[in-house]
Amino acid sequence: MEKKIISGAVIKRLPRYYNCLKELSIDGIQKISSNVISEKLNVTASQVRQDFSNFGEFGQQGYGYDVEYLKNQMAKILGLNKEYSAIIIGGGNIGKALANYQGFKSEGFNILAVFDICPENIKLKNIPVLNIDKLKEYLQNNKIDICIIATDKENAKEAANKVIKFGVNAIWNFAPVELYFGDNVAVENINMSASLFMLTYNMKSRLKN
Amino acid sequence: MEKKIISGAVIKRLPRYYNCLKELSIDGIQKISSNVISEKLNVTASQVRQDFSNFGEFGQQGYGYDVEYLKNQMAKILGLNKEYSAIIIGGGNIGKALANYQGFKSEGFNILAVFDICPENIKLKNIPVLNIDKLKEYLQNNKIDICIIATDKENAKEAANKVIKFGVNAIWNFAPVELYFGDNVAVENINMSASLFMLTYNMKSRLKN
Repeated sequence: MEKKIISGAVIKRLPRYYNCLKELSIDGIQKISSNVISEKLNVTASQVRQDFSNFGEFGQQGYGYDVEYLKNQMAKILGLNKEYSAIIIGGGNIGKALANYQGFKSEGFNILAVFDICPENIKLKNIPVLNIDKLKEYLQNNKIDICIIATDKENAKEAANKVIKFGVNAIWNFAPVELYFGDNVAVENINMSASLFMLTYNMKSRLKN
Repeated sequence: MEKKIISGAVIKRLPRYYNCLKELSIDGIQKISSNVISEKLNVTASQVRQDFSNFGEFGQQGYGYDVEYLKNQMAKILGLNKEYSAIIIGGGNIGKALANYQGFKSEGFNILAVFDICPENIKLKNIPVLNIDKLKEYLQNNKIDICIIATDKENAKEAANKVIKFGVNAIWNFAPVELYFGDNVAVENINMSASLFMLTYNMKSRLKN
């Protein structure tokens, strides 16, 4: 089962299925139909059934899928069965919002520090805010899995290059510029304007109908 | 040309091409090769060429694509050749970051107001912050194209339902919950945790290699 190759398109839906199954699990629901998941995620029920069949879980007619089993399978595939340490570079509104968001910790993501050029202007409850000058020293003394880039567009690439040089190989980028660093560094770009433009595209398509 | 049907997969790449072409245009670049775009966006050069052929622009060997032409074609398809009015519900860190971001205005997105349950606690430079109680009245007196949801998970659906009821039919959702409202409402969910889980998936895949 572990060795089965799952397509990229399915992989991209896994985080959404995982979030959905997690909510169901929190609500104490043990079995769920593909129709309910379909409605929640705007994916067709047949697509849900096809995707879930990748995990050897075909559900039972009139009974549904096992929520815990699927959730755990997906967590394992997504690498969510371990803890991650993270830092944030950039203490503006986005950086502060991410530092304050409580949802990460419960998923095993520990944000250990925020770095900024003016740390004295940033107040956070439980996370130290450090001067960007201390970054090298910090990374030499602490094992950091993920660097969250929350700088402006102009400083994003340089900030990411710096942490990569000091051994971080995963970048979660919120700056409005797409970053890539070759095959050895995992990168996810939160491309807000791309999402906004998809919205206007969909608005336009709807008006035509 | 206008009538040609373009696949969903190509459409999803358009906002990224558009952003890339816009940057090139700002930098004064008139012609660009598929290889350069490929590097910038982590899409193969042959994919770029195939996608651009949808716009009747095949480029010239050793000369490249016309940046302005492609940019304008894509803007038109994405509905970016008009102005949009928007409001934000939720004046927390994310809401404030979006309200303060200058990049939207230059693209024709005008954020006219932020609504919150405690408007007195939120200070913004150029955008009025209003009490959520005033939402209905505001929407009756102002034509709003897009509502940006920046509430917490618990209040997102209710907030969106309210503006939809008052005639808004496009939702840009930043709350950590996926929202859908049927075919008449355009919705884009900024699913941050899905992006984070794709990052851990990619980290895990890299470690295996």
